[in-house]
Amino acid sequence: MRNIDETNITEAVIARFDRCDNPRLKEVLSALVRHLHDLVREVKLTEDEWMQGIQFLTATGQMCDDKRQEFILLSDTLGVSMLTVALNQKRPPGATEATVFGPFHVDDAPQLPAGSDLARGAPGEPLFVDVEVVDLQGRPVAGAEVDVWQADEEGLYDVQRPELGSARRARGVLHTDADGRTNFRSIVPTAYPVPTDGPVGRMLVATGRHPWRPAHVHFMIRAEGFRPLITHIFRDPDPYLESDVVFGVRSSLIGRFEHHAQGPRLDRPYWTLAQRFVLAP
Amino acid sequence: MRNIDETNITEAVIARFDRCDNPRLKEVLSALVRHLHDLVREVKLTEDEWMQGIQFLTATGQMCDDKRQEFILLSDTLGVSMLTVALNQKRPPGATEATVFGPFHVDDAPQLPAGSDLARGAPGEPLFVDVEVVDLQGRPVAGAEVDVWQADEEGLYDVQRPELGSARRARGVLHTDADGRTNFRSIVPTAYPVPTDGPVGRMLVATGRHPWRPAHVHFMIRAEGFRPLITHIFRDPDPYLESDVVFGVRSSLIGRFEHHAQGPRLDRPYWTLAQRFVLAP
Repeated sequence: MRNIDETNITEAVIARFDRCDNPRLKEVLSALVRHLHDLVREVKLTEDEWMQGIQFLTATGQMCDDKRQEFILLSDTLGVSMLTVALNQKRPPGATEATVFGPFHVDDAPQLPAGSDLARGAPGEPLFVDVEVVDLQGRPVAGAEVDVWQADEEGLYDVQRPELGSARRARGVLHTDADGRTNFRSIVPTAYPVPTDGPVGRMLVATGRHPWRPAHVHFMIRAEGFRPLITHIFRDPDPYLESDVVFGVRSSLIGRFEHHAQGPRLDRPYWTLAQRFVLAP
Repeated sequence: MRNIDETNITEAVIARFDRCDNPRLKEVLSALVRHLHDLVREVKLTEDEWMQGIQFLTATGQMCDDKRQEFILLSDTLGVSMLTVALNQKRPPGATEATVFGPFHVDDAPQLPAGSDLARGAPGEPLFVDVEVVDLQGRPVAGAEVDVWQADEEGLYDVQRPELGSARRARGVLHTDADGRTNFRSIVPTAYPVPTDGPVGRMLVATGRHPWRPAHVHFMIRAEGFRPLITHIFRDPDPYLESDVVFGVRSSLIGRFEHHAQGPRLDRPYWTLAQRFVLAP
Protein backbone atom coordinates (compact mmCIF):
# COMPACT_ATOMS: atom_id res chain seq x y z
CA MET A 1 0.00 0.00 0.00
CA ARG A 2 2.88 2.38 0.48
CA ASN A 3 4.11 2.05 -3.06
CA ILE A 4 1.14 2.33 -5.30
CA ASP A 5 2.02 2.64 -8.97
CA GLU A 6 0.14 2.35 -12.24
CA THR A 7 0.54 -1.43 -12.29
CA ASN A 8 -0.85 -2.27 -8.85
CA ILE A 9 -3.29 0.53 -8.07
CA THR A 10 -6.32 -1.14 -9.66
CA GLU A 11 -6.10 -4.21 -7.44
CA ALA A 12 -5.43 -1.96 -4.43
CA VAL A 13 -8.62 0.03 -5.05
CA ILE A 14 -10.74 -3.06 -5.66
CA ALA A 15 -9.37 -4.68 -2.48
CA ARG A 16 -10.73 -1.68 -0.59
CA PHE A 17 -14.26 -2.94 -1.35
CA ASP A 18 -13.56 -6.21 0.52
CA ARG A 19 -15.80 -5.23 3.43
CA CYS A 20 -18.72 -4.12 1.28
CA ASP A 21 -21.71 -6.16 2.46
CA ASN A 22 -23.71 -5.50 -0.72
CA PRO A 23 -22.37 -8.04 -3.25
CA ARG A 24 -23.96 -6.33 -6.24
CA LEU A 25 -22.58 -2.89 -5.32
CA LYS A 26 -19.17 -4.49 -4.85
CA GLU A 27 -19.40 -6.16 -8.26
CA VAL A 28 -20.49 -3.01 -10.09
CA LEU A 29 -17.96 -0.70 -8.40
CA SER A 30 -15.10 -3.16 -8.88
CA ALA A 31 -15.91 -3.42 -12.58
CA LEU A 32 -16.24 0.38 -12.80
CA VAL A 33 -12.80 0.86 -11.25
CA ARG A 34 -11.25 -1.73 -13.56
CA HIS A 35 -12.72 -0.16 -16.70
CA LEU A 36 -11.97 3.43 -15.60
CA HIS A 37 -8.36 2.54 -14.84
CA ASP A 38 -8.00 0.60 -18.10
CA LEU A 39 -9.29 3.66 -19.94
CA VAL A 40 -6.81 5.99 -18.22
CA ARG A 41 -3.89 3.62 -18.93
CA GLU A 42 -4.96 2.89 -22.50
CA VAL A 43 -5.18 6.53 -23.61
CA LYS A 44 -2.38 7.62 -21.26
CA LEU A 45 -4.61 10.36 -19.91
CA THR A 46 -2.65 13.54 -19.17
CA GLU A 47 -3.20 15.58 -16.03
CA ASP A 48 -4.67 18.44 -18.08
CA GLU A 49 -7.10 16.04 -19.73
CA TRP A 50 -8.01 14.62 -16.32
CA MET A 51 -8.81 18.14 -15.12
CA GLN A 52 -10.87 18.82 -18.26
CA GLY A 53 -12.80 15.65 -17.49
CA ILE A 54 -13.41 16.77 -13.89
CA GLN A 55 -14.62 20.16 -15.11
CA PHE A 56 -16.86 18.60 -17.76
CA LEU A 57 -18.53 16.28 -15.23
CA THR A 58 -18.93 19.13 -12.74
CA ALA A 59 -20.54 21.39 -15.35
CA THR A 60 -22.82 18.53 -16.40
CA GLY A 61 -24.07 18.06 -12.84
CA GLN A 62 -24.52 21.78 -12.37
CA MET A 63 -26.62 22.03 -15.55
CA CYS A 64 -29.22 19.72 -13.97
CA ASP A 65 -32.36 21.02 -12.30
CA ASP A 66 -35.95 19.90 -11.98
CA LYS A 67 -36.50 20.43 -15.72
CA ARG A 68 -33.12 19.50 -17.16
CA GLN A 69 -31.13 16.29 -16.77
CA GLU A 70 -27.79 16.79 -18.50
CA PHE A 71 -26.33 13.47 -17.26
CA ILE A 72 -29.20 11.56 -18.89
CA LEU A 73 -28.48 13.56 -22.05
CA LEU A 74 -24.80 12.61 -21.80
CA SER A 75 -25.71 8.96 -21.31
CA ASP A 76 -28.14 9.19 -24.26
CA THR A 77 -25.62 10.77 -26.63
CA LEU A 78 -22.91 8.24 -25.70
CA GLY A 79 -25.30 5.35 -26.38
CA VAL A 80 -25.25 4.19 -22.75
CA SER A 81 -29.00 4.69 -22.29
CA MET A 82 -29.95 2.74 -25.41
CA LEU A 83 -27.47 -0.01 -24.51
CA THR A 84 -29.07 -0.31 -21.07
CA VAL A 85 -32.53 -0.47 -22.67
CA ALA A 86 -31.36 -3.09 -25.18
CA LEU A 87 -29.91 -5.27 -22.40
CA ASN A 88 -32.96 -5.04 -20.15
CA GLN A 89 -35.88 -4.79 -22.53
CA LYS A 90 -35.54 -7.89 -24.64
CA ARG A 91 -39.05 -9.00 -25.55
CA PRO A 92 -40.50 -12.04 -27.25
CA PRO A 93 -40.96 -11.93 -31.06
CA GLY A 94 -44.08 -10.00 -31.96
CA ALA A 95 -44.03 -7.70 -28.91
CA THR A 96 -43.51 -3.98 -29.56
CA GLU A 97 -39.90 -3.01 -28.97
CA ALA A 98 -38.75 -0.53 -26.34
CA THR A 99 -36.50 2.48 -26.75
CA VAL A 100 -35.02 5.25 -24.59
CA PHE A 101 -37.13 7.04 -21.99
CA GLY A 102 -35.60 10.47 -22.54
CA PRO A 103 -35.62 13.37 -20.09
CA PHE A 104 -38.98 14.99 -20.91
CA HIS A 105 -41.55 12.76 -19.22
CA VAL A 106 -43.43 14.32 -16.29
CA ASP A 107 -45.48 12.54 -13.63
CA ASP A 108 -48.29 15.06 -13.52
CA ALA A 109 -49.51 14.95 -17.13
CA PRO A 110 -53.28 15.49 -17.43
CA GLN A 111 -55.56 12.42 -17.32
CA LEU A 112 -57.77 12.71 -20.41
CA PRO A 113 -60.76 10.87 -21.88
CA ALA A 114 -60.53 9.22 -25.30
CA GLY A 115 -60.94 11.70 -28.13
CA SER A 116 -59.24 14.56 -26.25
CA ASP A 117 -56.97 17.08 -27.91
CA LEU A 118 -53.62 16.61 -26.15
CA ALA A 119 -52.07 19.53 -27.99
CA ARG A 120 -53.93 22.13 -25.90
CA GLY A 121 -52.64 24.88 -28.15
CA ALA A 122 -49.17 23.51 -28.89
CA PRO A 123 -48.30 24.58 -32.46
CA GLY A 124 -48.30 21.97 -35.23
CA GLU A 125 -50.27 20.25 -38.00
CA PRO A 126 -53.27 18.33 -36.65
CA LEU A 127 -52.73 14.62 -36.03
CA PHE A 128 -55.36 12.04 -35.08
CA VAL A 129 -53.96 8.95 -33.37
CA ASP A 130 -55.84 5.67 -33.02
CA VAL A 131 -54.20 3.41 -30.47
CA GLU A 132 -54.81 -0.30 -30.04
CA VAL A 133 -53.18 -2.28 -27.23
CA VAL A 134 -53.11 -6.07 -27.57
CA ASP A 135 -51.34 -9.07 -26.06
CA LEU A 136 -49.05 -11.48 -27.92
CA GLN A 137 -52.10 -13.40 -29.16
CA GLY A 138 -53.67 -10.23 -30.55
CA ARG A 139 -56.35 -10.05 -27.85
CA PRO A 140 -57.34 -6.55 -26.70
CA VAL A 141 -55.88 -5.26 -23.42
CA ALA A 142 -58.60 -3.26 -21.70
CA GLY A 143 -57.81 -0.56 -19.11
CA ALA A 144 -54.19 -0.11 -20.24
CA GLU A 145 -52.70 3.24 -19.28
CA VAL A 146 -51.40 5.07 -22.36
CA ASP A 147 -49.06 7.90 -21.36
CA VAL A 148 -48.16 10.10 -24.36
CA TRP A 149 -45.71 12.99 -24.66
CA GLN A 150 -44.11 14.80 -27.57
CA ALA A 151 -42.46 17.96 -28.85
CA ASP A 152 -44.36 20.60 -30.79
CA GLU A 153 -43.80 21.95 -34.30
CA GLU A 154 -40.87 24.03 -33.08
CA GLY A 155 -39.20 20.97 -31.57
CA LEU A 156 -39.89 21.98 -27.98
CA TYR A 157 -41.55 20.09 -25.14
CA ASP A 158 -43.76 22.10 -22.79
CA VAL A 159 -41.13 21.84 -20.03
CA GLN A 160 -38.68 23.60 -22.34
CA ARG A 161 -40.90 26.67 -22.59
CA PRO A 162 -40.47 28.81 -19.49
CA GLU A 163 -43.42 30.98 -20.59
CA LEU A 164 -45.75 28.02 -19.95
CA GLY A 165 -44.85 27.74 -16.27
CA SER A 166 -46.16 24.40 -15.06
CA ALA A 167 -48.94 24.27 -17.70
CA ARG A 168 -48.94 20.97 -19.60
CA ARG A 169 -49.49 20.57 -23.31
CA ALA A 170 -48.75 17.99 -26.01
CA ARG A 171 -48.89 15.31 -23.35
CA GLY A 172 -51.55 13.34 -21.50
CA VAL A 173 -52.61 10.00 -20.04
CA LEU A 174 -55.47 7.95 -21.52
CA HIS A 175 -56.87 4.46 -20.91
CA THR A 176 -57.94 1.79 -23.37
CA ASP A 177 -61.58 0.69 -23.54
CA ALA A 178 -62.95 -2.88 -23.54
CA ASP A 179 -61.66 -3.31 -27.12
CA GLY A 180 -58.14 -2.27 -26.10
CA ARG A 181 -58.57 1.01 -27.96
CA THR A 182 -58.28 4.70 -27.35
CA ASN A 183 -57.70 7.72 -29.54
CA PHE A 184 -56.66 11.31 -29.28
CA ARG A 185 -55.94 14.38 -31.30
CA SER A 186 -52.48 15.95 -31.15
CA ILE A 187 -49.96 17.54 -33.51
CA VAL A 188 -47.48 16.05 -35.96
CA PRO A 189 -44.10 15.63 -34.28
CA THR A 190 -41.06 17.20 -35.93
CA ALA A 191 -37.36 16.47 -35.69
CA TYR A 192 -35.64 18.51 -33.00
CA PRO A 193 -32.17 19.07 -31.59
CA VAL A 194 -31.43 17.95 -28.04
CA PRO A 195 -30.55 20.94 -25.84
CA THR A 196 -27.15 22.23 -26.94
CA ASP A 197 -26.56 25.08 -24.49
CA GLY A 198 -24.75 22.86 -21.97
CA PRO A 199 -21.67 20.62 -21.71
CA VAL A 200 -23.23 17.87 -23.86
CA GLY A 201 -23.87 20.42 -26.62
CA ARG A 202 -20.22 21.46 -26.43
CA MET A 203 -19.19 17.79 -26.71
CA LEU A 204 -21.36 17.37 -29.81
CA VAL A 205 -19.89 20.47 -31.47
CA ALA A 206 -16.32 19.50 -30.55
CA THR A 207 -16.78 16.06 -32.11
CA GLY A 208 -18.55 17.25 -35.28
CA ARG A 209 -21.85 15.59 -34.36
CA HIS A 210 -25.30 16.99 -35.12
CA PRO A 211 -27.73 17.23 -32.19
CA TRP A 212 -30.90 16.05 -33.95
CA ARG A 213 -33.47 13.44 -33.07
CA PRO A 214 -35.86 12.24 -35.79
CA ALA A 215 -39.52 13.16 -35.21
CA HIS A 216 -41.30 10.88 -32.75
CA VAL A 217 -44.09 10.57 -30.20
CA HIS A 218 -43.30 9.00 -26.83
CA PHE A 219 -45.52 6.28 -25.40
CA MET A 220 -45.42 4.56 -22.03
CA ILE A 221 -48.00 1.79 -21.79
CA ARG A 222 -48.81 -0.07 -18.60
CA ALA A 223 -51.38 -2.74 -17.88
CA GLU A 224 -51.75 -5.32 -15.13
CA GLY A 225 -50.11 -8.61 -16.00
CA PHE A 226 -47.85 -7.08 -18.68
CA ARG A 227 -44.35 -5.63 -18.77
CA PRO A 228 -44.44 -1.85 -18.92
CA LEU A 229 -43.49 -0.63 -22.39
CA ILE A 230 -41.53 2.60 -22.87
CA THR A 231 -41.12 3.40 -26.53
CA HIS A 232 -41.42 5.95 -29.36
CA ILE A 233 -43.25 5.93 -32.66
CA PHE A 234 -41.11 7.56 -35.38
CA ARG A 235 -42.20 9.19 -38.61
CA ASP A 236 -40.71 8.33 -42.01
CA PRO A 237 -39.35 10.12 -44.02
CA ASP A 238 -37.11 12.05 -41.66
CA PRO A 239 -33.56 13.24 -42.34
CA TYR A 240 -32.34 11.91 -39.00
CA LEU A 241 -33.76 8.38 -38.94
CA GLU A 242 -30.28 7.04 -39.80
CA SER A 243 -28.41 9.22 -37.34
CA ASP A 244 -30.55 9.77 -34.23
CA VAL A 245 -28.24 11.55 -31.76
CA VAL A 246 -29.37 9.19 -28.98
CA PHE A 247 -29.36 5.96 -31.05
CA GLY A 248 -33.03 5.19 -30.30
CA VAL A 249 -34.46 4.30 -33.75
CA ARG A 250 -35.72 0.80 -34.53
CA SER A 251 -37.33 -0.12 -37.87
CA SER A 252 -40.24 -1.71 -36.07
CA LEU A 253 -41.05 1.60 -34.37
CA ILE A 254 -41.69 3.57 -37.56
CA GLY A 255 -45.38 4.41 -37.62
CA ARG A 256 -47.78 4.82 -40.53
CA PHE A 257 -48.42 8.55 -40.56
CA GLU A 258 -50.90 9.35 -43.35
CA HIS A 259 -51.64 12.74 -44.80
CA HIS A 260 -55.19 13.79 -45.64
CA ALA A 261 -55.81 16.93 -47.74
CA GLN A 262 -59.25 17.21 -46.22
CA GLY A 263 -61.50 14.57 -44.83
CA PRO A 264 -64.00 13.24 -42.45
CA ARG A 265 -62.13 14.35 -39.36
CA LEU A 266 -61.29 17.95 -40.25
CA ASP A 267 -62.15 20.35 -43.07
CA ARG A 268 -58.49 21.25 -43.56
CA PRO A 269 -55.31 19.17 -44.06
CA TYR A 270 -54.47 16.75 -41.26
CA TRP A 271 -52.59 13.55 -40.50
CA THR A 272 -53.57 10.22 -39.01
CA LEU A 273 -51.59 7.51 -37.26
CA ALA A 274 -53.07 4.10 -36.48
CA GLN A 275 -50.76 2.34 -34.05
CA ARG A 276 -51.00 -1.10 -32.50
CA PHE A 277 -48.90 -1.85 -29.41
CA VAL A 278 -48.26 -5.48 -28.50
CA LEU A 279 -47.47 -5.99 -24.81
CA ALA A 280 -45.32 -8.80 -23.46
CA PRO A 281 -46.58 -10.62 -20.35
CA MET B 1 -28.51 2.54 -37.73
CA ARG B 2 -32.18 1.64 -37.51
CA ASN B 3 -31.63 -1.55 -35.57
CA ILE B 4 -29.22 -0.76 -32.85
CA ASP B 5 -28.81 -3.54 -30.31
CA GLU B 6 -26.35 -4.37 -27.56
CA THR B 7 -23.94 -6.00 -29.99
CA ASN B 8 -23.59 -3.17 -32.53
CA ILE B 9 -24.25 0.01 -30.55
CA THR B 10 -20.64 0.55 -29.48
CA GLU B 11 -19.34 0.71 -33.04
CA ALA B 12 -22.31 2.89 -34.02
CA VAL B 13 -21.48 5.44 -31.31
CA ILE B 14 -17.76 5.45 -32.11
CA ALA B 15 -18.53 5.91 -35.84
CA ARG B 16 -20.38 9.09 -34.87
CA PHE B 17 -17.01 10.65 -33.98
CA ASP B 18 -15.76 10.19 -37.57
CA ARG B 19 -15.98 13.90 -38.32
CA CYS B 20 -14.19 15.00 -35.16
CA ASP B 21 -11.24 17.11 -36.30
CA ASN B 22 -9.40 16.77 -32.99
CA PRO B 23 -7.67 13.38 -33.18
CA ARG B 24 -6.87 13.22 -29.47
CA LEU B 25 -10.46 14.03 -28.45
CA LYS B 26 -11.66 11.37 -30.87
CA GLU B 27 -9.25 8.83 -29.40
CA VAL B 28 -10.18 9.55 -25.78
CA LEU B 29 -13.95 9.65 -26.37
CA SER B 30 -13.89 6.49 -28.48
CA ALA B 31 -12.01 4.65 -25.73
CA LEU B 32 -14.38 6.08 -23.12
CA VAL B 33 -17.41 4.81 -25.03
CA ARG B 34 -15.84 1.37 -25.48
CA HIS B 35 -15.01 1.00 -21.79
CA LEU B 36 -18.34 2.42 -20.60
CA HIS B 37 -20.27 0.06 -22.86
CA ASP B 38 -18.09 -2.91 -21.85
CA LEU B 39 -18.82 -2.08 -18.21
CA VAL B 40 -22.58 -1.93 -18.80
CA ARG B 41 -22.54 -5.23 -20.71
CA GLU B 42 -20.20 -6.97 -18.26
CA VAL B 43 -22.25 -6.22 -15.14
CA LYS B 44 -25.57 -6.34 -17.05
CA LEU B 45 -26.50 -3.00 -15.58
CA THR B 46 -30.21 -2.80 -14.78
CA GLU B 47 -32.30 0.25 -15.57
CA ASP B 48 -32.71 1.01 -11.84
CA GLU B 49 -28.95 0.86 -11.37
CA TRP B 50 -28.47 3.11 -14.40
CA MET B 51 -30.82 5.67 -12.80
CA GLN B 52 -28.97 5.39 -9.49
CA GLY B 53 -25.75 6.11 -11.39
CA ILE B 54 -27.33 9.16 -13.05
CA GLN B 55 -28.54 10.44 -9.69
CA PHE B 56 -25.16 9.81 -8.05
CA LEU B 57 -23.29 11.74 -10.75
CA THR B 58 -25.83 14.57 -10.63
CA ALA B 59 -25.56 14.88 -6.84
CA THR B 60 -21.75 14.81 -7.14
CA GLY B 61 -21.78 17.74 -9.55
CA GLN B 62 -24.24 19.66 -7.45
CA MET B 63 -22.06 19.24 -4.34
CA CYS B 64 -19.29 21.22 -6.07
CA ASP B 65 -18.76 24.93 -5.43
CA ASP B 66 -15.78 27.24 -5.20
CA LYS B 67 -14.60 25.48 -2.03
CA ARG B 68 -15.62 21.91 -2.67
CA GLN B 69 -14.77 19.63 -5.58
CA GLU B 70 -16.70 16.39 -5.12
CA PHE B 71 -15.69 14.98 -8.54
CA ILE B 72 -12.00 15.30 -7.63
CA LEU B 73 -12.85 13.53 -4.38
CA LEU B 74 -14.61 10.78 -6.32
CA SER B 75 -11.62 10.45 -8.65
CA ASP B 76 -9.29 10.39 -5.62
CA THR B 77 -11.24 7.70 -3.76
CA LEU B 78 -11.48 5.49 -6.86
CA GLY B 79 -7.72 5.73 -7.41
CA VAL B 80 -8.11 7.54 -10.74
CA SER B 81 -6.24 10.64 -9.54
CA MET B 82 -3.25 8.68 -8.21
CA LEU B 83 -3.20 6.54 -11.37
CA THR B 84 -3.08 9.69 -13.50
CA VAL B 85 -0.25 11.07 -11.35
CA ALA B 86 1.64 7.76 -11.54
CA LEU B 87 1.36 7.73 -15.35
CA ASN B 88 2.40 11.34 -15.83
CA GLN B 89 4.84 12.02 -13.04
CA LYS B 90 7.48 9.37 -13.57
CA ARG B 91 10.78 10.90 -12.49
CA PRO B 92 14.39 9.81 -12.72
CA PRO B 93 15.81 7.82 -9.76
CA GLY B 94 16.72 10.12 -6.92
CA ALA B 95 14.09 12.76 -7.68
CA THR B 96 11.38 13.30 -5.08
CA GLU B 97 8.20 11.46 -6.05
CA ALA B 98 4.89 13.15 -6.75
CA THR B 99 1.50 12.37 -5.32
CA VAL B 100 -2.10 13.63 -5.63
CA PHE B 101 -2.87 17.34 -5.69
CA GLY B 102 -6.06 17.10 -3.65
CA PRO B 103 -8.89 19.64 -3.59
CA PHE B 104 -7.62 22.08 -0.93
CA HIS B 105 -4.99 24.16 -2.71
CA VAL B 106 -5.85 27.83 -3.22
CA ASP B 107 -4.18 30.29 -5.56
CA ASP B 108 -4.20 33.23 -3.17
CA ALA B 109 -2.17 31.81 -0.28
CA PRO B 110 -0.04 34.48 1.46
CA GLN B 111 3.50 35.09 0.22
CA LEU B 112 5.71 34.84 3.31
CA PRO B 113 9.38 35.38 4.15
CA ALA B 114 11.51 32.54 5.51
CA GLY B 115 10.95 31.93 9.21
CA SER B 116 7.26 32.89 9.10
CA ASP B 117 4.60 31.15 11.13
CA LEU B 118 2.24 29.71 8.50
CA ALA B 119 -0.20 28.50 11.14
CA ARG B 120 -1.52 32.01 11.84
CA GLY B 121 -3.53 30.69 14.74
CA ALA B 122 -4.54 27.28 13.32
CA PRO B 123 -4.67 24.85 16.27
CA GLY B 124 -1.94 22.20 16.61
CA GLU B 125 1.42 21.30 18.16
CA PRO B 126 4.21 23.57 16.95
CA LEU B 127 6.28 22.28 14.04
CA PHE B 128 9.45 23.82 12.59
CA VAL B 129 10.16 22.81 9.01
CA ASP B 130 13.54 23.21 7.32
CA VAL B 131 13.25 22.83 3.56
CA GLU B 132 16.08 22.24 1.16
CA VAL B 133 15.53 22.15 -2.60
CA VAL B 134 18.25 20.57 -4.73
CA ASP B 135 18.75 19.20 -8.24
CA LEU B 136 19.59 15.59 -9.13
CA GLN B 137 23.27 16.31 -8.47
CA GLY B 138 22.51 17.65 -5.00
CA ARG B 139 23.18 21.27 -5.98
CA PRO B 140 20.98 23.90 -4.31
CA VAL B 141 18.09 25.34 -6.32
CA ALA B 142 17.83 29.03 -5.42
CA GLY B 143 14.63 31.00 -5.85
CA ALA B 144 12.36 27.94 -5.92
CA GLU B 145 8.74 28.65 -5.00
CA VAL B 146 7.66 26.47 -2.08
CA ASP B 147 3.87 26.42 -1.78
CA VAL B 148 2.74 24.71 1.43
CA TRP B 149 -0.76 23.78 2.65
CA GLN B 150 -2.08 21.51 5.35
CA ALA B 151 -4.93 20.64 7.71
CA ASP B 152 -4.94 21.71 11.35
CA GLU B 153 -5.08 19.62 14.53
CA GLU B 154 -8.80 19.03 14.00
CA GLY B 155 -8.20 17.73 10.49
CA LEU B 156 -9.64 20.79 8.76
CA TYR B 157 -8.19 23.04 6.09
CA ASP B 158 -8.95 26.75 6.38
CA VAL B 159 -11.34 26.55 3.41
CA GLN B 160 -13.38 23.99 5.36
CA ARG B 161 -14.04 26.47 8.17
CA PRO B 162 -16.83 28.84 7.14
CA GLU B 163 -16.12 30.98 10.22
CA LEU B 164 -12.76 32.00 8.67
CA GLY B 165 -14.37 33.52 5.58
CA SER B 166 -11.58 34.05 3.06
CA ALA B 167 -8.86 34.31 5.74
CA ARG B 168 -5.92 31.99 5.02
CA ARG B 169 -4.09 29.94 7.61
CA ALA B 170 -1.89 26.85 7.70
CA ARG B 171 -0.79 27.65 4.18
CA GLY B 172 1.68 29.98 2.49
CA VAL B 173 4.20 30.46 -0.30
CA LEU B 174 7.94 30.87 0.40
CA HIS B 175 11.07 31.00 -1.76
CA THR B 176 14.42 29.30 -1.32
CA ASP B 177 17.56 31.36 -0.71
CA ALA B 178 20.93 31.10 -2.49
CA ASP B 179 21.59 27.83 -0.62
CA GLY B 180 18.29 26.33 -1.83
CA ARG B 181 16.87 26.62 1.67
CA THR B 182 13.90 28.12 3.44
CA ASN B 183 12.13 27.40 6.69
CA PHE B 184 8.88 28.06 8.41
CA ARG B 185 6.92 27.39 11.54
CA SER B 186 3.61 25.59 11.29
CA ILE B 187 1.66 22.92 13.18
CA VAL B 188 1.93 19.13 13.20
CA PRO B 189 -0.47 17.63 10.65
CA THR B 190 -2.96 15.03 11.84
CA ALA B 191 -4.89 12.31 10.04
CA TYR B 192 -8.26 13.48 8.83
CA PRO B 193 -11.31 12.12 7.05
CA VAL B 194 -12.13 13.41 3.60
CA PRO B 195 -15.51 15.21 3.58
CA THR B 196 -18.21 12.59 4.08
CA ASP B 197 -21.35 14.71 3.91
CA GLY B 198 -21.76 14.22 0.15
CA PRO B 199 -22.23 11.45 -2.42
CA VAL B 200 -18.62 10.24 -2.08
CA GLY B 201 -19.10 9.85 1.67
CA ARG B 202 -22.22 7.79 1.00
CA MET B 203 -20.23 5.60 -1.41
CA LEU B 204 -17.53 5.04 1.25
CA VAL B 205 -20.12 4.07 3.89
CA ALA B 206 -22.00 1.80 1.47
CA THR B 207 -18.79 -0.04 0.60
CA GLY B 208 -17.49 -0.38 4.16
CA ARG B 209 -14.51 1.94 3.55
CA HIS B 210 -13.07 4.38 6.07
CA PRO B 211 -12.65 7.99 4.90
CA TRP B 212 -9.23 8.71 6.46
CA ARG B 213 -6.05 10.13 5.05
CA PRO B 214 -2.82 9.71 6.99
CA ALA B 215 -1.35 12.97 8.33
CA HIS B 216 0.58 14.96 5.73
CA VAL B 217 1.73 18.39 4.60
CA HIS B 218 1.23 19.36 0.96
CA PHE B 219 4.07 20.88 -1.04
CA MET B 220 4.11 22.29 -4.56
CA ILE B 221 7.62 23.29 -5.62
CA ARG B 222 8.39 25.16 -8.80
CA ALA B 223 11.67 26.50 -10.14
CA GLU B 224 12.81 27.58 -13.57
CA GLY B 225 14.37 24.74 -15.52
CA PHE B 226 12.74 22.02 -13.39
CA ARG B 227 9.53 20.00 -13.57
CA PRO B 228 6.98 21.27 -11.07
CA LEU B 229 6.66 18.89 -8.13
CA ILE B 230 3.31 18.33 -6.41
CA THR B 231 3.69 16.06 -3.43
CA HIS B 232 3.01 15.42 0.28
CA ILE B 233 5.26 14.65 3.22
CA PHE B 234 3.65 12.03 5.48
CA ARG B 235 4.26 11.37 9.17
CA ASP B 236 5.03 7.91 10.58
CA PRO B 237 3.56 6.33 12.70
CA ASP B 238 0.03 6.90 11.47
CA PRO B 239 -2.85 4.39 11.56
CA TYR B 240 -3.76 5.15 7.96
CA LEU B 241 -0.41 4.95 6.18
CA GLU B 242 -1.39 1.51 4.85
CA SER B 243 -4.92 2.46 3.84
CA ASP B 244 -4.96 6.09 2.64
CA VAL B 245 -8.46 6.62 1.24
CA VAL B 246 -6.99 8.32 -1.85
CA PHE B 247 -4.05 5.90 -2.39
CA GLY B 248 -1.44 8.66 -2.20
CA VAL B 249 1.19 7.23 0.16
CA ARG B 250 4.70 6.39 -1.04
CA SER B 251 7.46 5.16 1.30
CA SER B 252 9.84 7.75 -0.06
CA LEU B 253 7.48 10.53 1.03
CA ILE B 254 7.51 9.70 4.75
CA GLY B 255 9.31 12.55 6.49
CA ARG B 256 11.49 12.57 9.60
CA PHE B 257 9.29 14.31 12.13
CA GLU B 258 11.23 14.63 15.41
CA HIS B 259 9.78 15.44 18.80
CA HIS B 260 11.57 17.81 21.19
CA ALA B 261 10.46 18.02 24.83
CA GLN B 262 11.94 21.50 25.03
CA GLY B 263 14.77 23.00 23.14
CA PRO B 264 16.48 25.79 21.40
CA ARG B 265 13.52 26.76 19.27
CA LEU B 266 10.74 26.86 21.86
CA ASP B 267 10.52 26.54 25.63
CA ARG B 268 7.75 23.98 25.37
CA PRO B 269 7.35 20.71 23.43
CA TYR B 270 7.62 21.02 19.65
CA TRP B 271 8.42 19.05 16.53
CA THR B 272 10.87 19.50 13.71
CA LEU B 273 10.95 18.25 10.14
CA ALA B 274 14.01 18.58 7.92
CA GLN B 275 12.98 17.83 4.35
CA ARG B 276 15.03 17.75 1.19
CA PHE B 277 13.23 17.94 -2.15
CA VAL B 278 15.07 16.77 -5.25
CA LEU B 279 13.73 18.34 -8.46
CA ALA B 280 13.91 16.68 -11.86
CA PRO B 281 14.97 18.85 -14.81
